[in-house]
Amino acid sequence: MDTIRDDTCPSFEGTLELIGRRWTGSVVQAAGQGARRFGEYRSMIEGISDRLLSQRLKELESAGLIDRTVVPSTPVQILYQLTPDGQALVDALMPLAQWSRRRSGHSGATQLPAA
Amino acid sequence: MDTIRDDTCPSFEGTLELIGRRWTGSVVQAAGQGARRFGEYRSMIEGISDRLLSQRLKELESAGLIDRTVVPSTPVQILYQLTPDGQALVDALMPLAQWSRRRSGHSGATQLPAA
Repeated sequence: MDTIRDDTCPSFEGTLELIGRRWTGSVVQAAGQGARRFGEYRSMIEGISDRLLSQRLKELESAGLIDRTVVPSTPVQILYQLTPDGQALVDALMPLAQWSRRRSGHSGATQLPAA
Repeated sequence: MDTIRDDTCPSFEGTLELIGRRWTGSVVQAAGQGARRFGEYRSMIEGISDRLLSQRLKELESAGLIDRTVVPSTPVQILYQLTPDGQALVDALMPLAQWSRRRSGHSGATQLPAA
């Protein structure tokens, strides 16, 4: 019987915790469509607040998954896009997205138990 | 520009939220090793409390990912194991686990930003 120790897979638990935060999946998915401005993310992700979108972008930036680029145009444009690591995450999430979609076809199986 | 609406992928957000809960990844991973008793899960997952293990098992059971079986032995044994749907989830999580492992090899990239 293998022991699952905290120190053997802290990165996996950390990953699950990061992407499990509300809206993070949607932000990463939106970023997968290319470099976008803040307002474009807001339009793409229906229902997200400015405060949470800003927080999620900052978290993903500090995790090295999203790059924030200042374009020296007039007016200045700020673009957010996936880093190569972020793109690899989006790819790694595909089987999970497919699993979710298959499951949502089942009766009642999509119900999330209360925390 | 595609709009990402809440109603297009509620199942994916729900999935991320479920597996993003602390210890859930470890419990699912432990369940992937076969049918086990509560005490065996506790030994396999170092650091988890009885209360949280019990809660996570119940959540996963009510999500249809873990089956609880009562074996009519003396004393009665209660075994927890993955359902076929739970096994499919473990499989779908593999690329994400690999991504996490690759990333933990990078310098500092494993750091999880504060919630």
